[in-house]
Amino acid sequence: MSKQPVLNAMLLETVVSRDPPNTDLVSECMEYSLMAGGKRVRPVLCLAAAEMFAASKEEAEEAALPTAIALEMIHTMSLMHDDLPSMDNDDLRRGKPTSHVKYGEDLAILAGDGLLSTSFQWIAEKTPQDKVDPSKILDVIARVSGCVGAKGLVGGQVLDLLCEGKRGKRDVTVDDLKWIHTHKTAALLVASVACGAILGGANEEEVEACEKFALNIGLAFQVADDILDVTGTTEDLGKTAAKDLDADKTTYPKLLGLDGARAEAVRLTEEAKGFMEPFGDRAIPLLALADYIIDRKN
Amino acid sequence: MSKQPVLNAMLLETVVSRDPPNTDLVSECMEYSLMAGGKRVRPVLCLAAAEMFAASKEEAEEAALPTAIALEMIHTMSLMHDDLPSMDNDDLRRGKPTSHVKYGEDLAILAGDGLLSTSFQWIAEKTPQDKVDPSKILDVIARVSGCVGAKGLVGGQVLDLLCEGKRGKRDVTVDDLKWIHTHKTAALLVASVACGAILGGANEEEVEACEKFALNIGLAFQVADDILDVTGTTEDLGKTAAKDLDADKTTYPKLLGLDGARAEAVRLTEEAKGFMEPFGDRAIPLLALADYIIDRKN
Repeated sequence: MSKQPVLNAMLLETVVSRDPPNTDLVSECMEYSLMAGGKRVRPVLCLAAAEMFAASKEEAEEAALPTAIALEMIHTMSLMHDDLPSMDNDDLRRGKPTSHVKYGEDLAILAGDGLLSTSFQWIAEKTPQDKVDPSKILDVIARVSGCVGAKGLVGGQVLDLLCEGKRGKRDVTVDDLKWIHTHKTAALLVASVACGAILGGANEEEVEACEKFALNIGLAFQVADDILDVTGTTEDLGKTAAKDLDADKTTYPKLLGLDGARAEAVRLTEEAKGFMEPFGDRAIPLLALADYIIDRKN
Repeated sequence: MSKQPVLNAMLLETVVSRDPPNTDLVSECMEYSLMAGGKRVRPVLCLAAAEMFAASKEEAEEAALPTAIALEMIHTMSLMHDDLPSMDNDDLRRGKPTSHVKYGEDLAILAGDGLLSTSFQWIAEKTPQDKVDPSKILDVIARVSGCVGAKGLVGGQVLDLLCEGKRGKRDVTVDDLKWIHTHKTAALLVASVACGAILGGANEEEVEACEKFALNIGLAFQVADDILDVTGTTEDLGKTAAKDLDADKTTYPKLLGLDGARAEAVRLTEEAKGFMEPFGDRAIPLLALADYIIDRKN
């Protein structure tokens, strides 16, 4: 994750162009949330995919950095909104008070809206059109925006809320769980890898292989998350441990047992790696990220 | 406003591609909010501006309809989020229960997020690239997204909340009021007209004239809104009348008197019309919309 300092500096840039004194507060809330210590998994995946296909690392970064940054803005927005009292009601995120605890619900909602819209502005304005065909940039915007709405993050979060019984008791099936994770977690990871590949110059078939890889990794990511909730400490996680258990939430360890969940994470990761075989050594950075995602401690 | 049936049908299309049963609820909430009887001012302005520059009405619609629809989705999202209990806490909008009253806060927040992201998906996917240069479509996305964040809708709403004393007493100046309206109301109207012009084929100078027109109309729109709050009935408005007065909110009638506010609305509209002079008869639809906006009853 050696790209983190560059990514952090660029993320800060997205909010520093303030217009005091009027928008200080919302920019501050955006900055607080962006800089709360995220692992930058989506930007790093996007850049690694771009590097697989671009002529050089420099060209990959030039083409894909604005999109990488946008993906982290969207991820941050989704955490801010999901943490709200009317949803998951989380007070702690990455070891710090959540945005609405620190800035109030109104600011957390508005700053999230600002991050979501600015993410598309960033892709549209900052991707160099002399390096990337504008049609491809439009394709990237369509894919990224498509994985936020009813068939993406938002749809996944709604089913998650329904499964928690917020609108009446509901029996949760493995299919429900897969649907939630496919939409709430995997969709944005798939877009991260696919858009990186597109911006790096991949053809359609190559983009499809990347999507299959990322879908598996996305599901493995969520299984790992569920396992960490059981085995991790609050200190390691930076958020309340065993929260899912307390909330009687349906998780992979609960459905498959802890060993079963671990086996499922391994199976998904191995299958993911299979999709990268055609790319040989060029896929090494992406494969390393896959391992990192599964073995992480928080 | 003869375009309303077409626009309503297209807005419905943005939410009908459901994936039952999991996203039904959020699609339903999006549909409820989109179909709550909006006047479609932004789409109509966008289409009228496109018609000024396109070879025919058909070409203007083909190029600008996806953006027109996107603008209404964004406007709807901003109403849904502004109405939330942590912000303006409005129970009634266009004569109906607001989205969070009907579907809950969680759904209103998530459906708003979905509308915001889908708006960009719509522009990127549906604008015909064989009719509009992809670079221009990117310009449109940059402009529309740019007027939502800290320097647009979100920034305006934050200052509005601050001026209402939500974070301590604050003296509200005419400058504050102008800043709020420029960002909260005018920015999206400016983008509507400017993007319509761009999609219709306007050159840079023509786009600038359209922006100046729209900025004035945007401010006049807000002055008219403030006047209606004083003079309108709850029945006409479809929302609680005299709410601003009750909330001791700073408004144009309060700062300038009712006659002074009316004179300001007329002045802004006349100045706006001046910017349309170079376009002669082609500007008639836009000028008619300007009059409609000022003379409306709700």
